[in-house]
Amino acid sequence: MATTTINDVNLEAVSELINKIKESPENAATKWQAEVNWHGAFRSDAKIRDFDPIVSDEPPGLGGTNSGPNPVEQLLGALGNCLAVGYAANASIAGVTIKDLRIEVEGDVDLHTFLGLTQGNAGYENIRVKVHLDCDGSEEQVQTIHNNVVSTSPVGHSISRPVSLDIQLAS
Amino acid sequence: MATTTINDVNLEAVSELINKIKESPENAATKWQAEVNWHGAFRSDAKIRDFDPIVSDEPPGLGGTNSGPNPVEQLLGALGNCLAVGYAANASIAGVTIKDLRIEVEGDVDLHTFLGLTQGNAGYENIRVKVHLDCDGSEEQVQTIHNNVVSTSPVGHSISRPVSLDIQLAS
Repeated sequence: MATTTINDVNLEAVSELINKIKESPENAATKWQAEVNWHGAFRSDAKIRDFDPIVSDEPPGLGGTNSGPNPVEQLLGALGNCLAVGYAANASIAGVTIKDLRIEVEGDVDLHTFLGLTQGNAGYENIRVKVHLDCDGSEEQVQTIHNNVVSTSPVGHSISRPVSLDIQLAS
Repeated sequence: MATTTINDVNLEAVSELINKIKESPENAATKWQAEVNWHGAFRSDAKIRDFDPIVSDEPPGLGGTNSGPNPVEQLLGALGNCLAVGYAANASIAGVTIKDLRIEVEGDVDLHTFLGLTQGNAGYENIRVKVHLDCDGSEEQVQTIHNNVVSTSPVGHSISRPVSLDIQLAS
C-alpha cells in the first residue's frame, strides 16, 4: 500500500470518511455550532466546543476597545484557514509535498450601510486572496490543486455564494 | 448633552466617524486583512494585526488533529461576534441597556463537494441564529434594534449575499 501520510495529513481518516459517505450519503451531513457571549461595549467572544473562545472587539476608530480582531477580520481568517486545509488535502492526495504555505487575504468594506447612512450591502464588496504555495509539484499539478481548492472550499463557497441566513430573537 | 456612554459603548467615537464620512464619503472605505500560515496536516493559524493568531484545525473524523476550531466553525463565530456588535451599537443608540446577550449560531454543511464526491455547493446550506437579548427595552424597541442589526451586519451580509472572491496563486 502507498504511503498514507504526506504533509502530515492523515489520508486514511479522510478515506474512511469518504467510504462511510459512499455507503450512506447521510454521513455527509454535518452540523457546526458556535456560542457568542457579549462582554460590554463591542467586546464578545465565540465559544466553539471546548476550545479557548475567539475574542472579538472593534478598533477605537469604530468605537471599540481594540482587545481583539474584529468580526470582519475573523471572517478573512476563517477563509484563509479553510483554504489552507484545502491545499494541504489536495496536495497530499496528489502526492505533492508542501514546503511552505502562506495565504494573504484582504477585502474592502464600505461602512455606509453598517453605520445606517445608506441601505444596501453592509458586507465585503470583494475579497482578494494571494496564495504562496512552495511545494515539489509541477506547474500543472499546482494548478490542478489550486482549481480543486477553489471549487471545494466550504468557507469560500459560504462567502462567494448566497447562504440562507435565519436570525431570530429567542422568545 | 445626553449621556454618550451606554452599555459601555463609546457612542462619541461612532458619531465622530459618521461625521467624518458625511464630510468625505471616502472615509467609509475600509480595508481588512489576515495572513494565514500553514503548520502541517490541517493545522494553520490566522494572524490579524498584532493579536494572537486564531488557531485552526480539523477534528479527527475529518483527518485533523483537533488542536482548534475548524474554519467553518470560525465562520459561525465571526457571524455571532458581528451580530453582538450590532445589538450593542443599536441598543445604545436607542438608549436601551443590555443586561445580557448570548447568541447561538449553527449551520449545516454537506461534505460531498468538499470531499470531491460531487460538484456543487461546498459551503453552508443554511445558518440559523438564535439571539438571547435581555435588556430594558420595550418589545417594539427590541424589534427595531433586531431589524436594524439584521439589515446592517457586515458579516451577515457577507454570508447571505454573494461576495466577489478572487483567489490567485502568487507567481
